[in-house]
Amino acid sequence: MKKISKISINDKLSKFSDHWSPKVIAEINDYQFKLVKIKDDFEWHSHNDTDEAFLVIKGNMRIDFKHDSISLSDGEMVVVPKGVEHKPYAQKECSVMIIEPRGVTNTGEKKTSLTAENDVWI
Amino acid sequence: MKKISKISINDKLSKFSDHWSPKVIAEINDYQFKLVKIKDDFEWHSHNDTDEAFLVIKGNMRIDFKHDSISLSDGEMVVVPKGVEHKPYAQKECSVMIIEPRGVTNTGEKKTSLTAENDVWI
Repeated sequence: MKKISKISINDKLSKFSDHWSPKVIAEINDYQFKLVKIKDDFEWHSHNDTDEAFLVIKGNMRIDFKHDSISLSDGEMVVVPKGVEHKPYAQKECSVMIIEPRGVTNTGEKKTSLTAENDVWI
Repeated sequence: MKKISKISINDKLSKFSDHWSPKVIAEINDYQFKLVKIKDDFEWHSHNDTDEAFLVIKGNMRIDFKHDSISLSDGEMVVVPKGVEHKPYAQKECSVMIIEPRGVTNTGEKKTSLTAENDVWI
């Protein structure tokens, strides 16, 4: 059996510094927990096959929707329903946990210069 | 479309005080985010169909396995693989987020006096 180990979110956050490049830290069944550091504007995108959860670990972020926006800080989360266009943004660096099925691409249905490699574990 | 709202973990934690009775705060697809306050010993149990993630929000907890145990504090998480017997414990009250598929019973395959009602949202 695979050894069961604890995972420290802060330890994992200390291991990378790049922005908009999610790192997988844990998996349950076919769902993944990813950490990502974000700053400035991301791109408008949607995920047609899945909902997506954002949980702010440290900092402040905003998620823009076409007719609304939501601001989140430490310990606050939001679920973006599948198919809903959204654009994350952070004025200063913000550390976020994303929970979603394995295989979701960060830029959704589009490949762009911000499309990150998938399934990168730290 | 259902309104997209942010969810504050601390706000949700302030809304209940019972132990070992998970409350759902969010859902992505068929997976749920639950908050639970725990204290003292739970029961040995396992979930034969699913892995289960525990993330400590505030406090200290221990998860005993048959040949090992893991202690967790704020910002630390562990994934208990499906089928693995485990027993959560907290000396003092500890607030925990559990992430697992909808429909998982807290006592696993057994119904006991600690079996909590499922799908209770706050």
